[in-house]
Amino acid sequence: MTMETGLIFHPYMRPGRTAKQTFEWGVQNSIACDKAGFTSMMISEHASQIWENIPNPELIIAASALQTKNIRFGPMAHILPHQHPAKLAMTVGWLSQILEGRYFLGIGAGAYPDATYIHGIRGDDQDTERLNDMVRESLSIMEKIWKREPFFYEGKYWDAGYPEEEVPVTEEDEQHMLADFSPWGGDAPEIAVTGFSKNSPSMRLAGERNFKPVSIYSGLEALKRHWEIYSEANIKAGFTPDRQRHAVSQTVFVGDTDAEAKKEVMEGPIGYCFNKYLIPIWRRFGMMDGFAKDAGIDPEKADLEFLVDHVFVVGSPDTVVDKINTLFEKCGGWGTLQVESHDYYDNPAPWWNSLELISKEVAPRIKLPKSK
Amino acid sequence: MTMETGLIFHPYMRPGRTAKQTFEWGVQNSIACDKAGFTSMMISEHASQIWENIPNPELIIAASALQTKNIRFGPMAHILPHQHPAKLAMTVGWLSQILEGRYFLGIGAGAYPDATYIHGIRGDDQDTERLNDMVRESLSIMEKIWKREPFFYEGKYWDAGYPEEEVPVTEEDEQHMLADFSPWGGDAPEIAVTGFSKNSPSMRLAGERNFKPVSIYSGLEALKRHWEIYSEANIKAGFTPDRQRHAVSQTVFVGDTDAEAKKEVMEGPIGYCFNKYLIPIWRRFGMMDGFAKDAGIDPEKADLEFLVDHVFVVGSPDTVVDKINTLFEKCGGWGTLQVESHDYYDNPAPWWNSLELISKEVAPRIKLPKSK
Repeated sequence: MTMETGLIFHPYMRPGRTAKQTFEWGVQNSIACDKAGFTSMMISEHASQIWENIPNPELIIAASALQTKNIRFGPMAHILPHQHPAKLAMTVGWLSQILEGRYFLGIGAGAYPDATYIHGIRGDDQDTERLNDMVRESLSIMEKIWKREPFFYEGKYWDAGYPEEEVPVTEEDEQHMLADFSPWGGDAPEIAVTGFSKNSPSMRLAGERNFKPVSIYSGLEALKRHWEIYSEANIKAGFTPDRQRHAVSQTVFVGDTDAEAKKEVMEGPIGYCFNKYLIPIWRRFGMMDGFAKDAGIDPEKADLEFLVDHVFVVGSPDTVVDKINTLFEKCGGWGTLQVESHDYYDNPAPWWNSLELISKEVAPRIKLPKSK
Repeated sequence: MTMETGLIFHPYMRPGRTAKQTFEWGVQNSIACDKAGFTSMMISEHASQIWENIPNPELIIAASALQTKNIRFGPMAHILPHQHPAKLAMTVGWLSQILEGRYFLGIGAGAYPDATYIHGIRGDDQDTERLNDMVRESLSIMEKIWKREPFFYEGKYWDAGYPEEEVPVTEEDEQHMLADFSPWGGDAPEIAVTGFSKNSPSMRLAGERNFKPVSIYSGLEALKRHWEIYSEANIKAGFTPDRQRHAVSQTVFVGDTDAEAKKEVMEGPIGYCFNKYLIPIWRRFGMMDGFAKDAGIDPEKADLEFLVDHVFVVGSPDTVVDKINTLFEKCGGWGTLQVESHDYYDNPAPWWNSLELISKEVAPRIKLPKSK
């Protein structure tokens, strides 16, 4: 079994891009990834951040649906406290049917306080426990709706129901029949959650509920802990943990030579995004600490070049194969390398080249240690 | 000024169509209408009816955005009591930006009790006054969010807010900047509402707020009343009513000859849909009464052939021009003929031909009486 490749689209477009450009770049990436053999594309949902300015991943997924053949799409993640679960259950079910199963559902509680505030939750109500409680209620409502059996539920946060189909007035009459917006092929789509901090409660939830675990790479130790937490909870709940389902998001760029790849990342859109947005954000959320610890340096000294040399996966195909195989040996490996997308809208050639090399020159040479 | 042509997509696909077929037919129609010169496409939102099985018009609009050039899209309508207004405000603003203004927003309170039940509103809470109150609160929240000025509002039905932009940590740092999901070119998109019953309260609301009025054709008397109610309220509120903004939904089919067109409608997808779904629905909502009254017959005797001959606009281009000009003389005319779409997925040629004829042979020969 080989490592699969995926794309995650946040989208990290530089401020000033129009919505149309951002949207178009998303659709272009889905088509390019599908052609290159990527197996999944995740698109995130954010209401507040200028660098992560997609409020509706489902719109890019819809625009890509008829223009792609094999790639699976997942919102990563729909922020459940921000929307009515009945409405979202319909959207998810319908989109999963449109894609004839090429769909999985990422769910989350929301990472940015400003986005949560916009949706009417502020102050003490932004407590993590309460937001997670909303996630649980939302999911349980969606699961009921997907079953299409009559119920009415008065919840803590939302009410929802499913009606009984009416009795037809005449035999031919079809006005009473209910539309079917349940997910493709069953009662629920595959559900995924993202883990981030070292002792991620999302990884425990993923294990307990047998959700697909997705890690944002934040250092080797955190990554190892993610798998430990997930697999422990997964086994305890009676499942068999499968590393193939584990996806890890990373900054990956492959060029024809090491020097070319490093220069492109340092001076191109990826470096620009890190300097303006991601390095400040990573400092704010403490993500630099894990990377610095892995390398044995002071987190304050971790700059773009440090990241390129020690954290990102950047280089020629041979170098990148070596870097990933080294990581795999240290942590046990994972199923999908989820490449973080960046803003190559103006000059996409190096980006398309990188995606092709990742899929065709790198991925086939990586093996999950357990399948060796 | 000539009459414009629009399409309204409900979608009236026969039960058994897959979601992918329905979705694809929507996108194909948007592309065909754009090429044929149609100026607008409305797509409805329904959670319960098998014959009207699009829960998310925004997904078809998104899939059509990059494949069309001139046509304007409008959800007709987003059902405001079914969703969180902050979430919807973001969707509307972003989609309107993606379309660079080729967007208007239809809003509604919901027509089907089953759909409302799914979204957690049942029994006495489905009272029209209460649902309209929800519509008002939802719209006022969306308008606040589109302004992008700080507020927090604790409403009767929803809470929502807009944060202050944070102070940057360093000068280069862009992590504090808020994304802009306000609608293209201003504080709000054009808003549209649909009127249906003879003394439609939606038409009064449209007049008062200067929204775009959209009538579902349910007989000449109702149509005349719609314009009276709208224009009276519009003048009272200090605006100048403009018939060009008034859209009327009708069943329209144009063939090369009258006989061909009638046969196609009686025996093809349109007739099938009316017999299985729309005639029963129209009886249930009392829509047959207006048509029968116009023709001086017993509503019980109004069948498909009666509708084809006396209510629909069916025939050769010459016949259809005559029929519409007669209607225009009797009621004063309207701005957009909103053609109801039907399920020609298996054999689209007669449908594409009809759309071409409507746009190119019929519309240029219709004039609004006041612009004569």
